[in-house]
Amino acid sequence: MREHKLKIKVRYHETDKMGVVHHGNYINWFEAVRTDLCSSLGIPYSLIEKEGFNIAVVEATVRYLAPVFFDEEVFVILKIEKASKSYFHFSYVIKNSKGDKIATGYTKHIVVNKQLKKDRLPDKFLNAFFKFLS
Amino acid sequence: MREHKLKIKVRYHETDKMGVVHHGNYINWFEAVRTDLCSSLGIPYSLIEKEGFNIAVVEATVRYLAPVFFDEEVFVILKIEKASKSYFHFSYVIKNSKGDKIATGYTKHIVVNKQLKKDRLPDKFLNAFFKFLS
Amino acid sequence: MREHKLKIKVRYHETDKMGVVHHGNYINWFEAVRTDLCSSLGIPYSLIEKEGFNIAVVEATVRYLAPVFFDEEVFVILKIEKASKSYFHFSYVIKNSKGDKIATGYTKHIVVNKQLKKDRLPDKFLNAFFKFLS
Amino acid sequence: MREHKLKIKVRYHETDKMGVVHHGNYINWFEAVRTDLCSSLGIPYSLIEKEGFNIAVVEATVRYLAPVFFDEEVFVILKIEKASKSYFHFSYVIKNSKGDKIATGYTKHIVVNKQLKKDRLPDKFLNAFFKFLS
Repeated sequence: MREHKLKIKVRYHETDKMGVVHHGNYINWFEAVRTDLCSSLGIPYSLIEKEGFNIAVVEATVRYLAPVFFDEEVFVILKIEKASKSYFHFSYVIKNSKGDKIATGYTKHIVVNKQLKKDRLPDKFLNAFFKFLS
Repeated sequence: MREHKLKIKVRYHETDKMGVVHHGNYINWFEAVRTDLCSSLGIPYSLIEKEGFNIAVVEATVRYLAPVFFDEEVFVILKIEKASKSYFHFSYVIKNSKGDKIATGYTKHIVVNKQLKKDRLPDKFLNAFFKFLS
Repeated sequence: MREHKLKIKVRYHETDKMGVVHHGNYINWFEAVRTDLCSSLGIPYSLIEKEGFNIAVVEATVRYLAPVFFDEEVFVILKIEKASKSYFHFSYVIKNSKGDKIATGYTKHIVVNKQLKKDRLPDKFLNAFFKFLS
Repeated sequence: MREHKLKIKVRYHETDKMGVVHHGNYINWFEAVRTDLCSSLGIPYSLIEKEGFNIAVVEATVRYLAPVFFDEEVFVILKIEKASKSYFHFSYVIKNSKGDKIATGYTKHIVVNKQLKKDRLPDKFLNAFFKFLS
């Protein structure tokens, strides 16, 4: 299965008084790699939204395996576990620059319209995800 | 001049690896006391927005006088320096529970509509601010 | 089983361009109710840390059931599913002011020392949690 | 005067319900370009801290000139206005990818030790900043 990878440099404000990245930030890094995937597939997420659709998170899990420190570079690696007109399931692995796995996780999503009601993603968008999967 | 005060409990994720509250959060605390003021004046900021107006920040300054620590309670104290149909200027003092001044600052705002173009706030909203000032 | 409840007012900066609270914030709200629990049990989390211990998150899950909007008040309700010298498991329900369930979730934790190595929580701290459970 | 430039991709969680980047994030982008400068000068900020020093923010101002949107790339451009053993003054311009100026600002800093008391930065660190200025 194909992967999409995004390099992220840890920012100071992402750390907490334990001296490591605060656990709340990983969920934003998952989001960053998702939007980077969309851009790389030629369907920027801003475009998907402009056409009236959101791929809204309905579940998110993070497993924290090792701490991440300020000034480190991490790689957030995404896989698509399932994609359909109405539902997406992504999985993630975060590695540090030594290649150590520091976290894993997944997010589940439903497609909604601007009124936040369930909707179905147009083929042109879905096909871009399918192309990545094939 | 009248003041409006909001008590805020420092949250863990607001700290950074220096062991204190990260300086980026104060600007969000300023916002919290502004929205609390609106609610207390009977014009919730969500209502102002619903009617098509935003009181958008065009300038913000924070002066950091002393560190704030996790689990502390701080008081964010707002004054209205200037209020008009199209412009607002608020000033802030943050004190810890001992009464020490830990930061000061101000924000300047212009009134815009949903298209982010300059607009003028309806009287019913402005009058609520004036009532507070008088 | 006893619950601990914390009222949180949604802050503007917690919203995103979908017009709702960004999903990344819930994990910080879970943290807020945990630290509020510690304070209410007479063992502020800042004290636990001062004595050299952290109750570090090793897993977190959020299930998003309904959107939350700016200016809303939500109630974050915590239960202790399991507590021991070395391990904690908390579960959470978030409700809006109408009583609708808007999210559920859990966090799992291990006790570590300042060097982030596994450790065991002193009895005085653990007993406070047990007292809450009984 | 020499400049240091950092490209930042707007993240979804940085937006707010106005549909633009929340004004609180700019101060974190200023920090990101500062730490990127340190790395590029061969004195990573994590190293400066490891040796016992912090360049702590004592004042920050942001002037917001135009909105920034999700998925945009912005360039945060830093200049050193003043650097000494005990004091730093940085200025910033943020531009979007079209070259429009979207914000300006500055931060003032004092050098402190781990106990947050005023201190003086060692020559090896200061010289790296001076080299950039010359």
